[in-house]
Amino acid sequence: MCGTEQAVVIKSSNTSSVAEEKENGSVKNHSFEEIINLDHGDPTMYESYWKNVGSKCTVTIPAYQSLSYFANAKNLCWFLEPTLEEEIKMLHNVVGNAIVQDHYIVVGTGSSQLIQAALYALCDSLNEPNPISVVSAAPYYSSYPEVMDFLRSRLFKWGGDARSFDEDGPYIEMVTSPNNPDGVIRVPVVKGAKGVLVHDFAYYWPQYTAITSPADHDIMLFTVSKCTGHAGSRIGWALVRDENVAKKMVKFIELNTIGVSKEAQLRAAKILEVISTSCQRFKPHDLKNFFEYTHNLMAERWKKLRDSVKSNKLFYVPKFPLQYCHFTRDFTETYPAFAWLKCKEGIDCEKLLRGHKILTRSGRRFGSDQEYVRISMLARDAEFDLFLQRLSTIHGVSNGNSEL
Amino acid sequence: MCGTEQAVVIKSSNTSSVAEEKENGSVKNHSFEEIINLDHGDPTMYESYWKNVGSKCTVTIPAYQSLSYFANAKNLCWFLEPTLEEEIKMLHNVVGNAIVQDHYIVVGTGSSQLIQAALYALCDSLNEPNPISVVSAAPYYSSYPEVMDFLRSRLFKWGGDARSFDEDGPYIEMVTSPNNPDGVIRVPVVKGAKGVLVHDFAYYWPQYTAITSPADHDIMLFTVSKCTGHAGSRIGWALVRDENVAKKMVKFIELNTIGVSKEAQLRAAKILEVISTSCQRFKPHDLKNFFEYTHNLMAERWKKLRDSVKSNKLFYVPKFPLQYCHFTRDFTETYPAFAWLKCKEGIDCEKLLRGHKILTRSGRRFGSDQEYVRISMLARDAEFDLFLQRLSTIHGVSNGNSEL
Repeated sequence: MCGTEQAVVIKSSNTSSVAEEKENGSVKNHSFEEIINLDHGDPTMYESYWKNVGSKCTVTIPAYQSLSYFANAKNLCWFLEPTLEEEIKMLHNVVGNAIVQDHYIVVGTGSSQLIQAALYALCDSLNEPNPISVVSAAPYYSSYPEVMDFLRSRLFKWGGDARSFDEDGPYIEMVTSPNNPDGVIRVPVVKGAKGVLVHDFAYYWPQYTAITSPADHDIMLFTVSKCTGHAGSRIGWALVRDENVAKKMVKFIELNTIGVSKEAQLRAAKILEVISTSCQRFKPHDLKNFFEYTHNLMAERWKKLRDSVKSNKLFYVPKFPLQYCHFTRDFTETYPAFAWLKCKEGIDCEKLLRGHKILTRSGRRFGSDQEYVRISMLARDAEFDLFLQRLSTIHGVSNGNSEL
Repeated sequence: MCGTEQAVVIKSSNTSSVAEEKENGSVKNHSFEEIINLDHGDPTMYESYWKNVGSKCTVTIPAYQSLSYFANAKNLCWFLEPTLEEEIKMLHNVVGNAIVQDHYIVVGTGSSQLIQAALYALCDSLNEPNPISVVSAAPYYSSYPEVMDFLRSRLFKWGGDARSFDEDGPYIEMVTSPNNPDGVIRVPVVKGAKGVLVHDFAYYWPQYTAITSPADHDIMLFTVSKCTGHAGSRIGWALVRDENVAKKMVKFIELNTIGVSKEAQLRAAKILEVISTSCQRFKPHDLKNFFEYTHNLMAERWKKLRDSVKSNKLFYVPKFPLQYCHFTRDFTETYPAFAWLKCKEGIDCEKLLRGHKILTRSGRRFGSDQEYVRISMLARDAEFDLFLQRLSTIHGVSNGNSEL
């Protein structure tokens, strides 16, 4: 779910156009009135690819299809559409980012639901007298604390920064890699004897990072939201090694939502199929390699971002090492879906940017400092360019307000 | 959710055809080998209507549509598709079963999710030291206890049969009307000073019961599963009077699944539109009135069921009063989606039927007695007819086994 951002609803003024208006005899530029909302990671940037694909990926569902709760009553995950299962396996094999053999596939309403399903599955059978701590190393995905705690479960609770966790007994560590918010490749940090790991791989796709090896863990979570850009579909999946854990996750989804929308699954299957096809050597000539296309988009944006703060003493953009990617068969840069921007010491970066009508998420929300903000790199072109333009004009701060 | 059955997965042998086989020189009828699963309420019966509708109700979704988490950022329920909102309002106005004015619409991944959202919304703000009891009069929907308790929340807990609830302080009563399992029209029973009601109206549609007046309560839950038969879509909606309760329900769905599948919403909108159109006087000539068609199907099944046990001293089928329906403008019978079948005193009805390879849900699961079972009336024709045929052959019991 680190991939599927909790969509904090802030009224966006996207609908008000960047216009000029004559006021008291002077011309006022309204572009500075427009709120740029980069707080959540809405992956609308991928729209351009899907518009180019055209009707090849259109899904048509007749009214009599998929009335039943069941997709395949004989499958452990009885609500998983067989075509989606196939396409998930195919895509992992094409990309090489995860081992599907010896894993059950559990589909979820986004990976948010799958995180909760995993926690339920891992904790329910332990019968511990106290809730089991769920930890993640800071900066951690900002929604983890709320998602773990909103129902005040006696099964699990948010346990905070994994680096300061030193309790004995069972715990669960969320290993989010590449990490949200900062894009860093991660390994577990607690390493206690009774720890269980949940690997959140929302961003382990070639447009964001090098595919260094196929991941092969007990519980691995993926989501179409950040892979293909179809966040509106709410489709995620888990690869789960242990049969009983997979069964319990299915039980959670049965009790929580009695399965997962068939329409969304059928469409996700079609979209994954097109992506796999786009990666083949022999394919329809007008179908661009999805990961190559989106990797280039990300590279371009990151270059623009670095350029816009290059001569700026106020902001620091993180750097990443080159890594060999087995998918592209080349050394490749890392281009995270979020920029983890740092301000000069002592500055509340979120507040500073908010003063310029740029909405971002404060480092404090991720268990980090006020100098940091997380900025979505996945917005539409117009919004992203306006953001860069505005960012480049901010050079200093006086009394909490920036000096242009 | 009383409408959206927890789909207990029992391997159905539907795939094995009713065939005859020569064995040791004798002909063996395999229909008695086939398991008939009427345990859950999978509404596949409606398929015939939707096959007749044909392409008029086919939904086509291009790949670039609905990438965003948001459907309408300006709406309180920011993930609700505007076309679905419109069609929900239209259908309630056409049918006359609920007042939509002065209510917010919150869409959910089936009404299961909306029940949990409502409980969260009602309990979170109360800040009670102990979980709030959620009650419902027996026979109550069999999934309520598990849905309330599976996460061991400190906010709410299953409180059992509403008729024996006598605690002071706040509580929530689920008013399921018509009731699952028995189809009875219900009103609240506890009537405590600090009670809050959640009305589950999954079955308050004209094919099942007379529409006696438009319901107008604080929280009313509906689902397409039992209204249109599209259980696989996982779309439900709540009509919520209080803005803060609606906001909290939206918050729950944000934390639980970050919204609801856009594909499922778009398809549900189209399906509701076709149903509303089918109820108009002036409409495409080949579009049958959906509720008239499905009401006739239900009437036929109930007649067959009554006929099959008429001369049988073992089983009792409940009777319902005639009521005036404002939708059909006529007196009409009640045809529940489930038959609440009663056996002669002392007989474990579920066990008896299971002995004949008919899977049903025991009355004990609904807080009632072993003499009762709940039987789905919504299966496909072939399965329902096979059930009746088999039922009519069961006349007595000896040592827990029936005598044919």
